[in-house]
Amino acid sequence: MGQHREDEGVAVTANGGQSSDTGRIEAFSDAVFAIAITLLIIEIGVPHAEGAESLSDKLLHLWPSYLGYAISFLVIGTVWANHHNRFRLIARSDHILLFLNIVFLMCVAFIPFPTALLAEYIREEEYRTTAVAVYSGTLAVTAIFFTVLWLYVAGNYRLVDRSVDPILLRAMTRRYVFGMVLYILAFALAFVSPAASLSLIIILALLFVLPEPEGSSGTRGTGRRSARG
Amino acid sequence: MGQHREDEGVAVTANGGQSSDTGRIEAFSDAVFAIAITLLIIEIGVPHAEGAESLSDKLLHLWPSYLGYAISFLVIGTVWANHHNRFRLIARSDHILLFLNIVFLMCVAFIPFPTALLAEYIREEEYRTTAVAVYSGTLAVTAIFFTVLWLYVAGNYRLVDRSVDPILLRAMTRRYVFGMVLYILAFALAFVSPAASLSLIIILALLFVLPEPEGSSGTRGTGRRSARG
Amino acid sequence: MGQHREDEGVAVTANGGQSSDTGRIEAFSDAVFAIAITLLIIEIGVPHAEGAESLSDKLLHLWPSYLGYAISFLVIGTVWANHHNRFRLIARSDHILLFLNIVFLMCVAFIPFPTALLAEYIREEEYRTTAVAVYSGTLAVTAIFFTVLWLYVAGNYRLVDRSVDPILLRAMTRRYVFGMVLYILAFALAFVSPAASLSLIIILALLFVLPEPEGSSGTRGTGRRSARG
Amino acid sequence: MGQHREDEGVAVTANGGQSSDTGRIEAFSDAVFAIAITLLIIEIGVPHAEGAESLSDKLLHLWPSYLGYAISFLVIGTVWANHHNRFRLIARSDHILLFLNIVFLMCVAFIPFPTALLAEYIREEEYRTTAVAVYSGTLAVTAIFFTVLWLYVAGNYRLVDRSVDPILLRAMTRRYVFGMVLYILAFALAFVSPAASLSLIIILALLFVLPEPEGSSGTRGTGRRSARG
Repeated sequence: MGQHREDEGVAVTANGGQSSDTGRIEAFSDAVFAIAITLLIIEIGVPHAEGAESLSDKLLHLWPSYLGYAISFLVIGTVWANHHNRFRLIARSDHILLFLNIVFLMCVAFIPFPTALLAEYIREEEYRTTAVAVYSGTLAVTAIFFTVLWLYVAGNYRLVDRSVDPILLRAMTRRYVFGMVLYILAFALAFVSPAASLSLIIILALLFVLPEPEGSSGTRGTGRRSARG
Repeated sequence: MGQHREDEGVAVTANGGQSSDTGRIEAFSDAVFAIAITLLIIEIGVPHAEGAESLSDKLLHLWPSYLGYAISFLVIGTVWANHHNRFRLIARSDHILLFLNIVFLMCVAFIPFPTALLAEYIREEEYRTTAVAVYSGTLAVTAIFFTVLWLYVAGNYRLVDRSVDPILLRAMTRRYVFGMVLYILAFALAFVSPAASLSLIIILALLFVLPEPEGSSGTRGTGRRSARG
Repeated sequence: MGQHREDEGVAVTANGGQSSDTGRIEAFSDAVFAIAITLLIIEIGVPHAEGAESLSDKLLHLWPSYLGYAISFLVIGTVWANHHNRFRLIARSDHILLFLNIVFLMCVAFIPFPTALLAEYIREEEYRTTAVAVYSGTLAVTAIFFTVLWLYVAGNYRLVDRSVDPILLRAMTRRYVFGMVLYILAFALAFVSPAASLSLIIILALLFVLPEPEGSSGTRGTGRRSARG
Repeated sequence: MGQHREDEGVAVTANGGQSSDTGRIEAFSDAVFAIAITLLIIEIGVPHAEGAESLSDKLLHLWPSYLGYAISFLVIGTVWANHHNRFRLIARSDHILLFLNIVFLMCVAFIPFPTALLAEYIREEEYRTTAVAVYSGTLAVTAIFFTVLWLYVAGNYRLVDRSVDPILLRAMTRRYVFGMVLYILAFALAFVSPAASLSLIIILALLFVLPEPEGSSGTRGTGRRSARG
């Protein structure tokens, strides 16, 4: 939306008649992110208190649900910010990007399920490893697809705006590959220490909120793509 | 949104005072697609494990839910991409398009229900045929309404941008009629072999991710409509 | 979004420093409509079939849920179209419009509840009147708030674009007052004949899909407001 | 979306290569608000009536659910309006704003949970204090994060458009700090009189619908930022 005709024109030229229309993929992805993040709350059911029981105790007992909600909210929020920042550098789209992006969104929209699983079973020792492994595994798969998507668009400037600085591009690639490896590590850690696995996930989410490599949101040239809101 | 006044002006002229405002239909439809696709996850309930039972077994036992989630995600994602690509060629709207589109969205937003049904009953042989028939039937009806909508807008260039190549238009019509026939075939197949029916649906979703007929997203002329994001 | 600075400038002048920013109200309202319409499906639960029971029978038995889904989808879709068309004529906003619109959206977002109630109880004669009365009553209250909102913005051209034809404005006012009266009638009818009440509601939804009074989407003048998507 | 390149250009200059891209944060936040407000309804379950029981009585018995729905709808609607108005004055974004905004949205998206809790327990005297305290506490924490976010962006014109009148800026800061203090007071009141606490919350929501300090939506200068929809 609000994409200027000139942008489109350039892209059409550069892409042999295919539309560069990344704006619609972006808007659709943003909506999926916003819905997935807001749906997290409906996995927390109101506790049932009766008679002499204290409602406060029941509510405190739900702490894994609040923790899961907070971690997943932060993770999805961070993934959204990264996804959005990257799409601002993408000048063209093709059917492979479209497909990779749908598979990536499939992972993101899946996150409420392992979050509810985590909240339900983190207190029970016999099930804890499974719950944390499924949770960290989902995030690892999400990170893998994000990295694959990025490698596809950035490799050889396939779909990325040609005005983006190559040094910047390599810095981003390193950043995502590194993040992916750490999410896979978090998955492996789940089988050793669920607590360590979750801690690593929280640290990763907080790290990715930090500023990106210097100037990473800019482009070398005209700033044409950064005109997109 | 972001539709330029000149577009509107042209459309008003071409349409005798009716608004061409397809942007709002598009934005509304995109939101419905994004919500329907993301709501799929809430149909998967966290399994209940107790005592000696293994949580992993319980989770593996849910495979039809994951399968249903993946297929429906892919199907809705593909339908969204096709819907969005087609609306970029539509230059005007009228009340019949508005109505056909609402009925079409009614089908799309319905998909989470047969998906949950499929996940619940695909393992039980006595119910499998019914579940797969309802699922493939819903997709067939969705495909029928999409084709009707397309035939209405494209027939005699009724609402389609006049700069679109007629050869392209016919290629798209063939594509949608063909897809519709195959979805109806998948519905019929459900009564013979549910597995074959589902396989056909998966193949169809993957096929529609493939590139469209050459230049299908472009227009003959000024690219005026492709200025829309 | 995409609102042009000049629009804003004019509105600021006309409104003593208040922003005319109707675009954000519109986008927010559209999102609420899209979510409410798509949430309708989650009120339909997958039926529980066991042993000798037929799943098809169980599914057919859910017909009131499908009927409720279809009617409410059509009603919300129609209300959305009307709301959206009217906002295209509104040039300025103020705090009363903002408040009236939030109360109006509160009614729209409430519709999934009486829809589920209708689906649950329409088959049971002792509860049918109550269920249909609550359903039609919700729609009547929604229509009342929509009419109040319209009377507020259109009265004496308070917030409406001054270039809109006064004859058109009066035609719209008649249309909404008339619709409101008929929805109130549907509510009253529920106590006499629930079937007649529901039939009237379906007819009303279909009627409002019909074209509006001649030229109703246009404006007298420059078409400045119709530049909004 | 629809953000003009010139805006971006100015911001890039003013911010050393960082993108000012507040539009995407705004659009994402708006979507979260819209979803959270519309999800409120799914916390109200259809009552179960059987035999001689009257469905109307059952429905009337649900009054706390309707009350909770109405209050939370009004509160989220008001918070949305305030959030949106403030972002129109923000010219640049940075990673701290992004993070504060995600944490703030985490509070907003949480509101459906205490709303359901309130509806469930407000009738039972032994649990009422806890339910109202959790509800008002959630709103107080939301108000605190909103105020922190505002103090961060407005302090020393850190991210706010430099053309905004300093007197206006101080008036807004006073307004938010004052609101925050009253929400904290509502939380404290819950332990003395739950009814008084809820009344204060309703009054606050209605107060914030009232017009802002004179000219608060405008800017001193060119109105450049107010061009954002």
